Amino acid sequence: MNFGSDNQSGVSPAVLQGIVEASTGVAGSYANDHWTQAANAKLSDIFEKPVQVFFVATGTASNCLALSALVQPWHSILCHSQAHIAVDELSAPELFTGGARLVLMGDDGGKLTAQLLSDTLQKLPADRPHNQIPGALSITQCTESGQVYSVEEIRALTEVAHAAGLRVHMDGARFSNALATLECSPADITWKAGVDVLCLGASKNGALALEAVIFFDDTLAKDFDLRRKRSGHLVSKGRLFGAQMCAWLENNHWIKLAHKANEVALALEHCLKQHPAIQLAWPVQANELFAVMPTALFERLKTEGVRLNE
Amino acid sequence: MNFGSDNQSGVSPAVLQGIVEASTGVAGSYANDHWTQAANAKLSDIFEKPVQVFFVATGTASNCLALSALVQPWHSILCHSQAHIAVDELSAPELFTGGARLVLMGDDGGKLTAQLLSDTLQKLPADRPHNQIPGALSITQCTESGQVYSVEEIRALTEVAHAAGLRVHMDGARFSNALATLECSPADITWKAGVDVLCLGASKNGALALEAVIFFDDTLAKDFDLRRKRSGHLVSKGRLFGAQMCAWLENNHWIKLAHKANEVALALEHCLKQHPAIQLAWPVQANELFAVMPTALFERLKTEGVRLNE
Amino acid sequence: MNFGSDNQSGVSPAVLQGIVEASTGVAGSYANDHWTQAANAKLSDIFEKPVQVFFVATGTASNCLALSALVQPWHSILCHSQAHIAVDELSAPELFTGGARLVLMGDDGGKLTAQLLSDTLQKLPADRPHNQIPGALSITQCTESGQVYSVEEIRALTEVAHAAGLRVHMDGARFSNALATLECSPADITWKAGVDVLCLGASKNGALALEAVIFFDDTLAKDFDLRRKRSGHLVSKGRLFGAQMCAWLENNHWIKLAHKANEVALALEHCLKQHPAIQLAWPVQANELFAVMPTALFERLKTEGVRLNE
Amino acid sequence: MNFGSDNQSGVSPAVLQGIVEASTGVAGSYANDHWTQAANAKLSDIFEKPVQVFFVATGTASNCLALSALVQPWHSILCHSQAHIAVDELSAPELFTGGARLVLMGDDGGKLTAQLLSDTLQKLPADRPHNQIPGALSITQCTESGQVYSVEEIRALTEVAHAAGLRVHMDGARFSNALATLECSPADITWKAGVDVLCLGASKNGALALEAVIFFDDTLAKDFDLRRKRSGHLVSKGRLFGAQMCAWLENNHWIKLAHKANEVALALEHCLKQHPAIQLAWPVQANELFAVMPTALFERLKTEGVRLNE
Repeated sequence: MNFGSDNQSGVSPAVLQGIVEASTGVAGSYANDHWTQAANAKLSDIFEKPVQVFFVATGTASNCLALSALVQPWHSILCHSQAHIAVDELSAPELFTGGARLVLMGDDGGKLTAQLLSDTLQKLPADRPHNQIPGALSITQCTESGQVYSVEEIRALTEVAHAAGLRVHMDGARFSNALATLECSPADITWKAGVDVLCLGASKNGALALEAVIFFDDTLAKDFDLRRKRSGHLVSKGRLFGAQMCAWLENNHWIKLAHKANEVALALEHCLKQHPAIQLAWPVQANELFAVMPTALFERLKTEGVRLNE
Repeated sequence: MNFGSDNQSGVSPAVLQGIVEASTGVAGSYANDHWTQAANAKLSDIFEKPVQVFFVATGTASNCLALSALVQPWHSILCHSQAHIAVDELSAPELFTGGARLVLMGDDGGKLTAQLLSDTLQKLPADRPHNQIPGALSITQCTESGQVYSVEEIRALTEVAHAAGLRVHMDGARFSNALATLECSPADITWKAGVDVLCLGASKNGALALEAVIFFDDTLAKDFDLRRKRSGHLVSKGRLFGAQMCAWLENNHWIKLAHKANEVALALEHCLKQHPAIQLAWPVQANELFAVMPTALFERLKTEGVRLNE
Repeated sequence: MNFGSDNQSGVSPAVLQGIVEASTGVAGSYANDHWTQAANAKLSDIFEKPVQVFFVATGTASNCLALSALVQPWHSILCHSQAHIAVDELSAPELFTGGARLVLMGDDGGKLTAQLLSDTLQKLPADRPHNQIPGALSITQCTESGQVYSVEEIRALTEVAHAAGLRVHMDGARFSNALATLECSPADITWKAGVDVLCLGASKNGALALEAVIFFDDTLAKDFDLRRKRSGHLVSKGRLFGAQMCAWLENNHWIKLAHKANEVALALEHCLKQHPAIQLAWPVQANELFAVMPTALFERLKTEGVRLNE
Repeated sequence: MNFGSDNQSGVSPAVLQGIVEASTGVAGSYANDHWTQAANAKLSDIFEKPVQVFFVATGTASNCLALSALVQPWHSILCHSQAHIAVDELSAPELFTGGARLVLMGDDGGKLTAQLLSDTLQKLPADRPHNQIPGALSITQCTESGQVYSVEEIRALTEVAHAAGLRVHMDGARFSNALATLECSPADITWKAGVDVLCLGASKNGALALEAVIFFDDTLAKDFDLRRKRSGHLVSKGRLFGAQMCAWLENNHWIKLAHKANEVALALEHCLKQHPAIQLAWPVQANELFAVMPTALFERLKTEGVRLNE
């Protein structure tokens, strides 16, 4: 049994089939292929407005390239202290933005709140030109602890952010799992709630290597092709991404995969709740589960071959 | 018929099969999977010494990450004026190296020579701290015009470079095509001839998205895992690359593919030589062919559906 | 009366006289003048060992250039949450280091302790290559709140830092005020206590514009001339700095000035302690004084023409 | 006798007097002092329109900060192959612009022409997103070889530049010497002729350390205070610069100094023309003179104590 990170699992047969089909024959390079174009059209359809889409291979590239379109080097980016950009992406945010600084909020594994954001903004020193100017808010949906923001919570956050002149980025590495939990459309929980750019991750939910930077505001996407190329993220055989995305979206496959992952997590939560020695750090809201257990039990599980992340 | 760039062609069935086989089941993420480990071992075997290998998805990432391990921001990188790093990678060399400067040599499509390198080095202003310090030589094998450097030519270049304190990078986007032309081993034309780091490209010769940065000197690779992660080029499902490389190398598949591509180019050259209106810019030495033809003929070919790069 | 920042005061007559004397006649440019050479020799003398010295015009340049010699872009720099590099230098640390990240310790205005440093290091995530690697500790002497580290406190901090592989930077914008308070030599409180590089500030204690980056370890200074030039901080008429430093050090002028400033602060503290409505945030240990007073009193003082920093 | 670079000479008595007068007493820090404000007002007066002015200590900082306000990292900056930014400022242009690339034009010591600029622009590869996009033209007035551009020449260059979407930067390290040669106003040869930003140098003509970045277009200056601070170029006692500039401009002092320097150069040219063994590389148009002489003569002059730049 393996309860490691969701990036250790394989590729969904449907997505793999998409890759296989796209791998033969000649096609335009550098995203000038019909799979990429079809994927873009499909995403505009799903998000209920024309969106600007750029595919890359990793979540770090996706997040940090997106942020680089929102801020200048003298800006700060406000995010949760456990956010992936804060904890798991080395100093990629600094490299891509040319030196913008992260401001961390929230100590535990919970969600950001409009109140916390508002308080943080108020406390930040604001003596120009000596201090960073807040430039962007980054929200993770679902959070690193598996919590899901409601539409109202997102809207409250983006309202505070926009009022203070910040752009809003959503790290959606597990966006599909959040969608499966929420009763809302992709548009409702993104641009209609004030999100300026979404990093939609597929790699952790059935794809091989596929992340999409999706701009809801065309002006922000203006030079993004140059940003992507300059950082070495423009893949020559772009159909690799286009084909995965087409297959992933086809027949609501992405949402079905997310539902399944969420259900497994819920079922596991149900089981673990029976076990007196195990406590759950947070209620399961999507596909992540954080169990607190005695060291002895943890070691026994590992001995028996169960794979866990510490 | 399509005579566009070699990055427009599809994936070799053997490589695709490798991807398919690696796509099911659970595997360690971030290059901790057995395909990646097997690929690394195979490359050490092929290059006749333990090498440090890092896979990425694009040639731009491969070249510029490799260069960033060789130079400081106050160094210059000497290369041919038509080199891919000079002409096709936007300002990625500057981003990855933190601001090192390219010094261009050679006006036409030919090869660099030890004499040209030596002359260029001598003419560069060297008033510290006002001028860049030459830090690296970058050689493209085969060149952008399809020419192949002999072992002796490489050795002559690296001797001048090393004597002047420069490290040597080889852009091997079409390295396999060069190998198929030369009568030598991979080791002969790289580290035995003085190359410090090779960017071995597979994407243009049968793979889907696969470039390998191969260090022959361990000390240069010291922090390369951090460089790759920081630029967003550490793919979570690393088996994507490991599996491609295993399949590409298996049974000398890479060299066979290169031989085939070179033969097609030679056959085409033979045909074109019969045509009085067409001239070849350079003799075909690998898989690239540059034909000079009257505009009317060019337009007619396009009208008839032949795809050509201008 | 003016109680604003110490960078609002004028230039000491002795230092001004030094500038005047150095301003006539021809002299070598770019630090190749005899004032600069004399200043360097004098500093080696004062610090009891040959030191590498580089002058610049601002504290931000001094601190951030020094840090760039200690860390790589994937490193973190640990410092107090109120440190000048954290609060007053915009994103200069990121620009000069190529993207290293600050890790802030300590919430209040106090000093860093070896225990706090040790605890912080232990809690930092250390999953290579996903997390920053701690690369440097930055200590401010005197602190932003006017507190002075003892030799023992510095040594305890540098021992923890060095044991963890960190280099140690001292922001000495008010170093002379600390020296005037402590009963020790400049060497005792710097390299003998484990400091690798000192940014010695003169601008806040009698000079016009003068900061010295002083390396106690030659290997760290290796390319510093290039770092300074590349950031535009190599002044052509270097005698501007050399002459100020000669005059500032001559006859122990720098320490005398610091003593005087400290005494004024102490005298002021004595007065304020008599006033029932005023409290002092921290005891005066050097030349800074932080008074907590009722808003009405603060406003009245301003109305009467007293200049205060909020 | 000393014929070294003009940055080896001392400070004009009037400018020194300005520094002395400003050095006593309390004044606002960070450019909030009345000398800086008076200097800004005076420059707006001299340039016949409200200009945005920022003082820094070095020409490298001035040029590269100005360029950073004109271009993005994916832009190229076109300039003469002998320009100071190309030859004498290490990789500062890359650091300040975040990685923009210089495109060099012109092989000899002459001036740029509209034709050369136009031809160069036409030949540059323009395959987005693979190639840099031309973003700025940099002109040096006087050139590194001492040549002076006429108003018509500047206008012809800026017209080509603006038509191609480029902003125009003028490196005016010796701007005052050019003004003394030309029969025109400062406005005529700058913004009225299409220059967007001027780096006005005083350090080589009587000042101690003083360069002014002068924006003729307010929108370009929008975040320049942050750019200056972030690179460590905001000096705390800003009156150092303000006082120098006030004294330098007062009573047309700057132009008088330039006239004198130019006259000396012309007189020297006259002398040298008598000498059969000496040839002048270019006619003297301002304050620089480049003599070609036999090695034996050069050595004899050095032996006799004459200081020359090679």
